[in-house]
Amino acid sequence: MSDDRPPMRRRDWLAATLGAAAFTGLLRTRFDAVNLLAQQSTSPDPTRVMGKLVSEVGSRAPGEQPRRSVSNLAPSSSSRTPLGDLHGIITPADLHFERHHAGVPAIDPSRYELLIHGMVERPTIFRLADLKRFPSVSRIYFLECSGNGGAAFNPTQMPTEITPQTMDGLLSTSEWTGVPLATLLREVGVRPGARWIVAEGGDAALLNRSVPIEKALDDALIAYGQNGEALRPEQGYPARLFLPGWEGNTNVKWIRRIEVTDQPVMSREETSNYTDPLRGGIARQFSFVMDAKSVITFPTFPYALPERGWWEVQGLAWSGRGTVARVDVSTDGGRSWHPAQLQQPVLPLATVRFRFPWNWDGREAILLSRCVDDTGYVQPTAQEFIAARGERTRYHSNFMRAWKVAADGSVTYGLGELL
Amino acid sequence: MSDDRPPMRRRDWLAATLGAAAFTGLLRTRFDAVNLLAQQSTSPDPTRVMGKLVSEVGSRAPGEQPRRSVSNLAPSSSSRTPLGDLHGIITPADLHFERHHAGVPAIDPSRYELLIHGMVERPTIFRLADLKRFPSVSRIYFLECSGNGGAAFNPTQMPTEITPQTMDGLLSTSEWTGVPLATLLREVGVRPGARWIVAEGGDAALLNRSVPIEKALDDALIAYGQNGEALRPEQGYPARLFLPGWEGNTNVKWIRRIEVTDQPVMSREETSNYTDPLRGGIARQFSFVMDAKSVITFPTFPYALPERGWWEVQGLAWSGRGTVARVDVSTDGGRSWHPAQLQQPVLPLATVRFRFPWNWDGREAILLSRCVDDTGYVQPTAQEFIAARGERTRYHSNFMRAWKVAADGSVTYGLGELL
Repeated sequence: MSDDRPPMRRRDWLAATLGAAAFTGLLRTRFDAVNLLAQQSTSPDPTRVMGKLVSEVGSRAPGEQPRRSVSNLAPSSSSRTPLGDLHGIITPADLHFERHHAGVPAIDPSRYELLIHGMVERPTIFRLADLKRFPSVSRIYFLECSGNGGAAFNPTQMPTEITPQTMDGLLSTSEWTGVPLATLLREVGVRPGARWIVAEGGDAALLNRSVPIEKALDDALIAYGQNGEALRPEQGYPARLFLPGWEGNTNVKWIRRIEVTDQPVMSREETSNYTDPLRGGIARQFSFVMDAKSVITFPTFPYALPERGWWEVQGLAWSGRGTVARVDVSTDGGRSWHPAQLQQPVLPLATVRFRFPWNWDGREAILLSRCVDDTGYVQPTAQEFIAARGERTRYHSNFMRAWKVAADGSVTYGLGELL
Repeated sequence: MSDDRPPMRRRDWLAATLGAAAFTGLLRTRFDAVNLLAQQSTSPDPTRVMGKLVSEVGSRAPGEQPRRSVSNLAPSSSSRTPLGDLHGIITPADLHFERHHAGVPAIDPSRYELLIHGMVERPTIFRLADLKRFPSVSRIYFLECSGNGGAAFNPTQMPTEITPQTMDGLLSTSEWTGVPLATLLREVGVRPGARWIVAEGGDAALLNRSVPIEKALDDALIAYGQNGEALRPEQGYPARLFLPGWEGNTNVKWIRRIEVTDQPVMSREETSNYTDPLRGGIARQFSFVMDAKSVITFPTFPYALPERGWWEVQGLAWSGRGTVARVDVSTDGGRSWHPAQLQQPVLPLATVRFRFPWNWDGREAILLSRCVDDTGYVQPTAQEFIAARGERTRYHSNFMRAWKVAADGSVTYGLGELL
């Protein structure tokens, strides 16, 4: 990482993240090696030396090596997008978050098949070339794991030294390309009485989810492209179901089978998992839509503001219900609110970057952001969220995050200060 | 194979129970072995083997390796985006076209400085952290080299076996992030009488271009971000001038100096180069704006349509003058035209993907596309273009490309058929 952002307390942060002092030294060495490399390859005066020639595929600058974060509990089944390191709304494909249940399968695209059957007139197997021959669409959409933000609230020990990446990095945005599922369903002929589809992935988990036929016939895609290129393997190569605005898990990757049915299949991933425990021992099921949410990405832990004065508070907002209508920012823990500027174009079911110029007076402050979507839905406070869902919910955690800026400029997660 | 499947639950238990860094390291080594195995090849049945585990940075599927094309005249100073291989409008950053005049300089971001001086009240040096502290914007814009498409017309030997990548691949689209140049100019205070700026790059070519102050104060950016991440080295890392809609060469990379002046500097790159030869030995100078243009990306050489029937004609359209208003497609060499569907959102100064469903009857056909922008400008035919500019112009070559589909389905560049 270059030294062009406010100083990160990297050593402390690594120690906290890893919880293992022995590893800190090892990782510091690795970072130093990267820095050393960057140092070596730059010239005291680049105007006096011939530069590198063209290449068939580019590489990042040695000092710019953003990374997905992987849990230190091996083996991990998820990796998280470095929200605090990115600009704009597009997530580079190689930094798009991952979540899988049996690893990333290696699928030979020439053998790939998607079977659509069940309550249809003409059960059909589509090969990849078949899918690509249909009229296609490309759209910029967010994708968020329903478990994203599960660490934002912990009644026994509220985190403080946590980054937006660790807390909410199961969120990414891409331009997705594919064939509308409605086109394929028209091709096979949905029979009267069909109410659901069951989508099954071609990984070793054979992950499957039930989706109401209305969504399948609305904006659902069988996607094969991402940010201009083919889907990445961890995003479902060669093809995945994409359900704009719906929880990540329903966007079945490596999709190999769609059965049209009259009822949900009640699979493992919609009964024992991906249901939201509520108070009184009951659970919310089929909570498909991702509620409106916003997260501040700067300033946040591990950054420290080096001086008072103007700083641009930045973050991302999105809503699975539609379009972001407004984002408000508070710098006093929610007592007063100010409208943030929204980066144009504001696209439905896509992240929106919001910006708020803040003149920091050097005193302790608590930053919050609040998203309002075009249905009028308002992102809840943590108290409102807990009152509605209880303290056990780890899914669909969309309450306002809080960041505490101390008088010395250091920033930590500050929800504990508000409860 | 089954012996190589990791006993997940036991490892989870080990890691959780022992919580020891030494064990994590040991397990990681064994998981790397699993990863290596998973990466080696595709499986006959991917549902029966554990897949690859998570990674900090993703990789493309082995069978999906798009490449920029590099001229076989070494050393080459440009590489071209594989337009025919991409979906949507976003170009992956590592496939964004390159053009440089003295290679890609390796600039240490901690030593990077941008000097703004000349007819200003307060000559100022901005470091990278200074640039990033200002309010930022992110926008999706195309970037096109003014020499793009120079090979589309050759009076002595018209090419036939040429791809859209080779012909028009000096075109890419990214979400660019940076600080408006107007903000910096306000900071330094432009003095009365200022009419131009001269932008100078920090490469060994010290490439410089003159830009009217109106553009500098309008939508010009000092960009440091591209598709969410830091600029790539070949795109000007750590910062470049970005002039939306203007010829690529004026978007000075590795920008190190901006001098505010009352006249253009008449540099090499705006006198001997980057002027458009016209008939009669004269040349057009300061042809900044990229005219409206469209290119078909499918079907084109080297594809061959395997059978008659429905095919989706696809391509990209853009205009440096504003927003694409319409794209028409002809399949009979320009005798009849049909409106193409434009991919939403249609953004100003960005590429737009157009699509036209075509029912190929198996007979020879010549495909054309024609872009009309919101100023009413119509993309010219080759004949109109040559009539206006003569046969020597290699810059700003925006006339309609033609693709000939033979009866056997093979596709070649077909301009020669029309002249």
